[in-house]
Amino acid sequence: MHEIQTVGVGTELQRFFAAARLRASDYGDHYVALWDSLEHASSGGKRVRPALVLAAFTGLGGTDLTLATPVAVSFELLHTAFVIHDDVIDHDLARRGVANIAGRFAERALAHGAGDQAGAWAATAAILAGDLALSEAHRALAMLPVELELRGRLLDLLDRAVFISAAGELADVTNAASKHPLTVAQVVSTLEQKTAVYSFEAPLQAGAILAGGSDEAIGVLGSYGRLIGVAFQLTDDILGVFGDPEKTGKSVLTDLREGKQTTLIAHAGTTTGWPEIAPYIGKPDLTEAEAATVRGLLRACGALQAADELATDHLNRAVAALDTAAVPAPLREMLTVLAGTAVNRTR
Amino acid sequence: MHEIQTVGVGTELQRFFAAARLRASDYGDHYVALWDSLEHASSGGKRVRPALVLAAFTGLGGTDLTLATPVAVSFELLHTAFVIHDDVIDHDLARRGVANIAGRFAERALAHGAGDQAGAWAATAAILAGDLALSEAHRALAMLPVELELRGRLLDLLDRAVFISAAGELADVTNAASKHPLTVAQVVSTLEQKTAVYSFEAPLQAGAILAGGSDEAIGVLGSYGRLIGVAFQLTDDILGVFGDPEKTGKSVLTDLREGKQTTLIAHAGTTTGWPEIAPYIGKPDLTEAEAATVRGLLRACGALQAADELATDHLNRAVAALDTAAVPAPLREMLTVLAGTAVNRTR
Repeated sequence: MHEIQTVGVGTELQRFFAAARLRASDYGDHYVALWDSLEHASSGGKRVRPALVLAAFTGLGGTDLTLATPVAVSFELLHTAFVIHDDVIDHDLARRGVANIAGRFAERALAHGAGDQAGAWAATAAILAGDLALSEAHRALAMLPVELELRGRLLDLLDRAVFISAAGELADVTNAASKHPLTVAQVVSTLEQKTAVYSFEAPLQAGAILAGGSDEAIGVLGSYGRLIGVAFQLTDDILGVFGDPEKTGKSVLTDLREGKQTTLIAHAGTTTGWPEIAPYIGKPDLTEAEAATVRGLLRACGALQAADELATDHLNRAVAALDTAAVPAPLREMLTVLAGTAVNRTR
Repeated sequence: MHEIQTVGVGTELQRFFAAARLRASDYGDHYVALWDSLEHASSGGKRVRPALVLAAFTGLGGTDLTLATPVAVSFELLHTAFVIHDDVIDHDLARRGVANIAGRFAERALAHGAGDQAGAWAATAAILAGDLALSEAHRALAMLPVELELRGRLLDLLDRAVFISAAGELADVTNAASKHPLTVAQVVSTLEQKTAVYSFEAPLQAGAILAGGSDEAIGVLGSYGRLIGVAFQLTDDILGVFGDPEKTGKSVLTDLREGKQTTLIAHAGTTTGWPEIAPYIGKPDLTEAEAATVRGLLRACGALQAADELATDHLNRAVAALDTAAVPAPLREMLTVLAGTAVNRTR
């Protein structure tokens, strides 16, 4: 994705936040701090979704970046909003080791002598920040100077992304109540709903629609996006247990301690190895040594191999979907390279 | 407001929820239940905001209800979204004595053997439901078949309503940390931001803009709306301590027990009566007898009279603002009647 310039998106976001901060200054320091936190939350990411919008747009012949940039901004802010509200749901105060909006406002409450209300400040700031990001995601599309029919198609795509992501987020939480491992199909379906649609399928399709792409191209990019989105998530789940924390920046204990429902666990649950594995899954004080034991057992029962194969299968199907004249060669090449990075990551 | 028919708004909302429920059925029972809860949350209210949109629209000569209805729906769903997220912030599981979305999903968790995760189900469902309502509020305006310039003005109004409401909601929470009573001006400003703008000012202005009203009419309706919105809230605060629970349906203990920062308290804080009153404010186990004592003290120190006068002052200024040829007589009459209902309510 490094070929795609998302500089314009960054500039547009900076402009939006600068204007918001100025407006916020009429409403006191706390509100300015909320906007600062929101800008912080929307920075530092890889801008994958804007890059996908722009890749599909330019790859299908689109040229007017004054149209594509707001669409790219919209999907970036949608992502920001979901991440923020997801953190509220999970009661997380940090993301990648840095205080998130809730964490910053919990600290702020302490600094203002309101330590007993740190939780309220944290939740309020994060819920509001998510609402503000979500609102701007809609607004960026709604203000596009295009005809009603095209605007309607883009708004439908955004609406669908919100609708399906909410379904996936809810499933993620209700699934956790299951006393037994989910099926592999259930895990994949939740990944698809919660992440793949809004992060990959919808941005690609939005870029394609805006470029005036054919129905076939739009359909193919949607299929590719959904498959590659799942491949990314499956790989994340594998790295969450078998990754090298130094390279991934992610502990290999967290998912196991939380009892996260991954395809590793789903597959292990169908094998004779499960009774030996089960006691470690969702064990809040799981040690490094126990995690090593679990890894050995997940290998031995075939769960690792099955998860790897499933990720590779999604990758291969994603690339195969691109094999049509409806997708111009340069776009196909770029998306094929992207697909490779989904699975071949540091273990 | 009873002259204004909001039947079309109700029908449109029913249609929206029926379609959403059908789509949701592809994603399991929990998601259908979420949409049911959301529809329930958006029902039963007085549809004040849609009525204001339609009053301003028809009062200024607007006739095409296929345009005004989606705008009215937008403000109703904005209200629904804010109420839902406000309940999450306050950890409320019920509204007007009936389980809200969080309450319903807490019960649902219990029924599905996930009682230990009832809090997570409750918060997740409510955060998502608010996001879905907020998204549709934006979408309803974004899909209006009107020119970019008019659409932009309406979207700006919605954006401003969201922006200022978030500021007010944040102020409401951070204000609670104050160890001393707020000033009357601080209380009024928070009421204005948190409620008056999105509930009164913006719906009236949206109807006026859509009807092609003059800048003067739009300005006057905005001033009226903001003033009358504050008058309503000031009266609510008075009724929250001095009201007849049988008539208002609201306990006269809750606000005192929570130490809610109202103009009653703000004024009392400036009087010599405050040291005697202070120990009761925010006392979680305040008794009926103690509440009666507080009422006596708030009367004696002049706080009740000051709060009453402030509400009446806002009412009078709101009505005075309408005294211009820019507001046609029938609209002025209706809004004057509405203003009267803001303050003259059951005590």
